[in-house]
Amino acid sequence: MYIAMNRFRVIRGCEMDFEAVWRGRESRLLQVPGFISFHLLRGPEHDDYTLYSSHTTWASHGDFEAWTKSGAFRAAHERAGDPNRKVLHLGHPQFEGFHVVLSETASNPAASARPRP
Amino acid sequence: MYIAMNRFRVIRGCEMDFEAVWRGRESRLLQVPGFISFHLLRGPEHDDYTLYSSHTTWASHGDFEAWTKSGAFRAAHERAGDPNRKVLHLGHPQFEGFHVVLSETASNPAASARPRP
Repeated sequence: MYIAMNRFRVIRGCEMDFEAVWRGRESRLLQVPGFISFHLLRGPEHDDYTLYSSHTTWASHGDFEAWTKSGAFRAAHERAGDPNRKVLHLGHPQFEGFHVVLSETASNPAASARPRP
Repeated sequence: MYIAMNRFRVIRGCEMDFEAVWRGRESRLLQVPGFISFHLLRGPEHDDYTLYSSHTTWASHGDFEAWTKSGAFRAAHERAGDPNRKVLHLGHPQFEGFHVVLSETASNPAASARPRP
């Protein structure tokens, strides 16, 4: 398994706009071979930005690489290059790719998420 | 959903020792309410360290907080304080907690992970 993350330093006050861009995007990830899951994550707040991380899990590094060379990838990233788009984050997103070394998964996460007495 | 991450800057050459510590640890996470999954991730290599991230997904931020106040948490972290333990990473791990804003999951990740013709 391979996890591709992009870290965004979102300008304070722009958080809702940033989330709206992601909510409004047309995702085609579900059709991409090897795609397992996507999460947009809101992290710690700093003085001048809130850290966000987009976080995509793939069956393998090869699946991720194949996607970055596909038309679906280009389509997903075309809007990001639009010069009329409002600047919502500081600098460029920082890419980090991770290989899964160890894994442990609850056999029934839904049960473990049940409210406890 | 809430994801707790710790970023470790593992000294170059110590990667296998670092992974061995994690493989050898006695995890009790599967018994903890709200625990969904744990991954140890190996990230990008830098001049003097390799980035690793431990990555634990919880049903809620409250479940994570309850775990940090539990005996299971103390037991899991006792060994980390052992002064005789070999230093494998630069500085302290950097904690970052993330709230899940958006999610997309393949309905059948196993199928999407199948080799393609």
